[in-house]
Amino acid sequence: MDKADIRDYRRWHREAALRARAAGFDLIYVYCRAGTSMNGDFLSRVMNRRTDEYGGSLENRARLLREVLEDTHAAVGDTCAVAIRFTVDFAVGPGAETDPEETRDIVEMFAELPDLWDVNIREWRRDSMPSRFGPEASQENLVAFVKGITSKPVVGVGRFTSPDTMVGQIERGVLDFIGAARPSIADPFLPQKIEQGRIDEISECIGCNICVSADYTIVPMRCTRNPTVGEEWRKGWHPERLPAKRSEDGILIVGAGPAGLEAARALGERGYSVTLAEAGDELGGRVAHECRLPGLAAWGRVRDYREQQFTRLGNVEVYRASALGADHVREFVMPHVVLATGASWRRDGIGHQHDVAIAGADGTDGANAANLLTPDDILAGARPTGPVLIYDDDHYYMGGLIAEQLRADGLDVTLVTPAADVSTWTHATLEHRWIEQRLHEIGVTIIEKHALAGIGPNAKAGIGPNAVEIAHVISGRRRTLAAASVVLVTCKISNDALYHELTADWDALAAAGITSVTRIGDCLAPSTIAAAIYAGHRYARELDAAPPDGVPFLRELPELGPF
Amino acid sequence: MDKADIRDYRRWHREAALRARAAGFDLIYVYCRAGTSMNGDFLSRVMNRRTDEYGGSLENRARLLREVLEDTHAAVGDTCAVAIRFTVDFAVGPGAETDPEETRDIVEMFAELPDLWDVNIREWRRDSMPSRFGPEASQENLVAFVKGITSKPVVGVGRFTSPDTMVGQIERGVLDFIGAARPSIADPFLPQKIEQGRIDEISECIGCNICVSADYTIVPMRCTRNPTVGEEWRKGWHPERLPAKRSEDGILIVGAGPAGLEAARALGERGYSVTLAEAGDELGGRVAHECRLPGLAAWGRVRDYREQQFTRLGNVEVYRASALGADHVREFVMPHVVLATGASWRRDGIGHQHDVAIAGADGTDGANAANLLTPDDILAGARPTGPVLIYDDDHYYMGGLIAEQLRADGLDVTLVTPAADVSTWTHATLEHRWIEQRLHEIGVTIIEKHALAGIGPNAKAGIGPNAVEIAHVISGRRRTLAAASVVLVTCKISNDALYHELTADWDALAAAGITSVTRIGDCLAPSTIAAAIYAGHRYARELDAAPPDGVPFLRELPELGPF
Repeated sequence: MDKADIRDYRRWHREAALRARAAGFDLIYVYCRAGTSMNGDFLSRVMNRRTDEYGGSLENRARLLREVLEDTHAAVGDTCAVAIRFTVDFAVGPGAETDPEETRDIVEMFAELPDLWDVNIREWRRDSMPSRFGPEASQENLVAFVKGITSKPVVGVGRFTSPDTMVGQIERGVLDFIGAARPSIADPFLPQKIEQGRIDEISECIGCNICVSADYTIVPMRCTRNPTVGEEWRKGWHPERLPAKRSEDGILIVGAGPAGLEAARALGERGYSVTLAEAGDELGGRVAHECRLPGLAAWGRVRDYREQQFTRLGNVEVYRASALGADHVREFVMPHVVLATGASWRRDGIGHQHDVAIAGADGTDGANAANLLTPDDILAGARPTGPVLIYDDDHYYMGGLIAEQLRADGLDVTLVTPAADVSTWTHATLEHRWIEQRLHEIGVTIIEKHALAGIGPNAKAGIGPNAVEIAHVISGRRRTLAAASVVLVTCKISNDALYHELTADWDALAAAGITSVTRIGDCLAPSTIAAAIYAGHRYARELDAAPPDGVPFLRELPELGPF
Repeated sequence: MDKADIRDYRRWHREAALRARAAGFDLIYVYCRAGTSMNGDFLSRVMNRRTDEYGGSLENRARLLREVLEDTHAAVGDTCAVAIRFTVDFAVGPGAETDPEETRDIVEMFAELPDLWDVNIREWRRDSMPSRFGPEASQENLVAFVKGITSKPVVGVGRFTSPDTMVGQIERGVLDFIGAARPSIADPFLPQKIEQGRIDEISECIGCNICVSADYTIVPMRCTRNPTVGEEWRKGWHPERLPAKRSEDGILIVGAGPAGLEAARALGERGYSVTLAEAGDELGGRVAHECRLPGLAAWGRVRDYREQQFTRLGNVEVYRASALGADHVREFVMPHVVLATGASWRRDGIGHQHDVAIAGADGTDGANAANLLTPDDILAGARPTGPVLIYDDDHYYMGGLIAEQLRADGLDVTLVTPAADVSTWTHATLEHRWIEQRLHEIGVTIIEKHALAGIGPNAKAGIGPNAVEIAHVISGRRRTLAAASVVLVTCKISNDALYHELTADWDALAAAGITSVTRIGDCLAPSTIAAAIYAGHRYARELDAAPPDGVPFLRELPELGPF
């Protein structure tokens, strides 16, 4: 950037501030985030190699930030507040450890210039830490010093979900305002509920970062906790208010996983009489199992919150240890039957990479079927003998988590995946680097870009039962690995036998007074927990109010300019 | 899919056809593409494992396709033509070689049912083959049989760019219609120019697939040949018509790479007197060099087409072997100076992965500077001694191409990249799998997810000058590789010395009658060839007609429903 470039940059920033004010904004930000803003890069000793008055000493490196802050104040400061978004560990580049002394100097230099300090840490994956890898309020020790320097209000983030933690931050003088994007997605009435003392009613963020994935996959945002997010206008779904029931129809829900739990809760809120039958001893379905895996304890909230709401509601009757067959379902004589019976991991290896069963995956041909496992077995407590090979053709968190669990159990673990990265879909949830780093640290052997060619002797003549053959997905080159057990993490298949059994005989259903049988969640189409929660909620909304004909939601229609 | 699902699918397809007709379409497609449509998957012996009347025999597997074709005819066939989009090699899955007999049986089975046969091959990367990996009309031997079976018209694709090839397809009875998406992006007046015999004026597609990348990167489409694509409405840029000049100002363009060539051509079309000065003996800049790399011959059209247009225009004066200094520029006494002096590959290793120079990359510390090369050296004809290590932190095509070139020259080549895939950005141009496959085939050693930690003895005590140290980008684990030479493919830096020299003395410029000095293309910001062509064109459009204030193009404004 030469001086003309710097002049242009300042002018554009000023014009942007004026446009923002014209558009009605009250608070205008000056960004100074390491690695993602000009102001931040100028501050950095490593990135800033200038030899003019914008480089060298801290005063020089901070010159552009000062100018932009002053420009913004001059442009809009009479009616707008001007905030600074400041990354406290702004140094970037190899060998560029953050210098806390210099960070302090910068905050002191600009202490009273902005009207608000918005402080955080660099790299989105660290700033929006998934719960699996970091606790609530994890930025406190990095940002707490700012309030000691400025008299202006300070706001910070850190996946604040617990009112006690938030109040603690204020009372101990760490922050003046609590920033909480993900928790507000999970519960838009979070501040109101705290104010009114309705703590039990808060739907707490579980830190799964499925919300973030929408940014990477260019789809509408979803939230595991709050199925109404993004549908407030499109479908008219208020986050808290549900329409009252329109009939006295009873509803039988089979399966108390995420979809069944949310359908029961939302129908209960609407005033319907709901019977929820769960085959197992505990509620939660996959969530009950998965929240026991390393780092996923917070995910249990998906179940706990709803269990709690059932107690309050009174019109949701819950039966545990109640596996229902078709006869049992008909005996309930309820007009509406909802099947939320979940899904199971496939045992034949079919998945993204494999359209047909993997040779040997059926346990024949000398492979020992007892040593072929799926995540369902591991989640149910089974432990294979080592060395164990985990084949991840699912690409979300499960393969990496099973590897972490089995390594913690002391096994020798190799993770093979056809993708270029382990748990590659977790790039979209900001978890990927954390996951791969942890797998390296705990000593899991990772083999990327290889597909499972065969298990047992079928793989290749002369290979014993405890061997697996893999092939490079592009070159096709084959290798043989020793493995006493194989865990197939490929894809899931719906548990829909009961649905097919019921719907095979509509006369019997009619005789039992059943008018509708509906699959929801994984029982219809295996997906994320967020998708199951959404499906349960949608069922409850649409039971007696079918969506309109045509496009079943409001949408934007492009109007062509000029404007 | 149970029978209810199949009924739903058929109903949705019928409703979609009716909506399409209501929206004004005349031609309604039934898709039967392997791997991307239900109809195609039902046809496949491998994917279709049904045991009912939709599985088993070919007649059964084809049942759904027949029903959908008949449904569509019944719904809209009275006023619309119904086409089938048919993938001739429809079999998918491991071991599922295409069975030409069965393909023929299917075409015979439905021969006269559709009004148009649109035939192609499966996988987008094969169907939209980049020129580097396949010739024009590459699908002929796969699709030619269709016309012998049906009396209905047949359309096919195959990156048809040459009128002779197109006419040949029709005359030899291969196809009735030529499908040409990429060639029509490159030149929307392709059919008209053929009809009018203006063959020389055709802007032929070079098969670089930069157009496809927009689909993957969610940005407006660009084309290396046609800078107006996507700007016809937004900026009012007609693909062929340029406004007449508004002054008698002369324009000096320094540099005849893509940006300079296109600026000269478009300004020439507008009627301006243009002087184009090129330092080298030939025109084309990077294109002149790159089109000599393996498989890129077609890219030379970017230069050839414009060189040809200059001959026709007469008002563009071209000087070769004319390196201009600041004094020379001023001596031309032309009001407008355009600097299109390109960019050079960095020699210090700075790039995506490295914010600071790589240890040893400056040739000090025992590393032999003569054995540190960049793509510029290779393009200029230099050949390193082996074994050679190519470090690709650029991630587009250059690293892989240099590897292919040096391997063809007989060297032992290792390609190291911090990305999870070699040439990872080429996933967006459908080239990635072709590139990685070729590198495996020709024996290039690929090491992914590793950064260059150091070159020469600085890397680690005890390592000789012919050694390179690399580190895993996530685990940090280090390895040492033997290498006599290193080619650094990291990023480019603008050749803007002349710009800075000129603009340091505005008095001298004024005295020489120069009123504007503008950098375009790589000289301003290194990017793709398509971006350079766009920059040259934009300069020519905006020279005497600055874009309007505010947003400098038309845009859609969302209007909120319901509608």
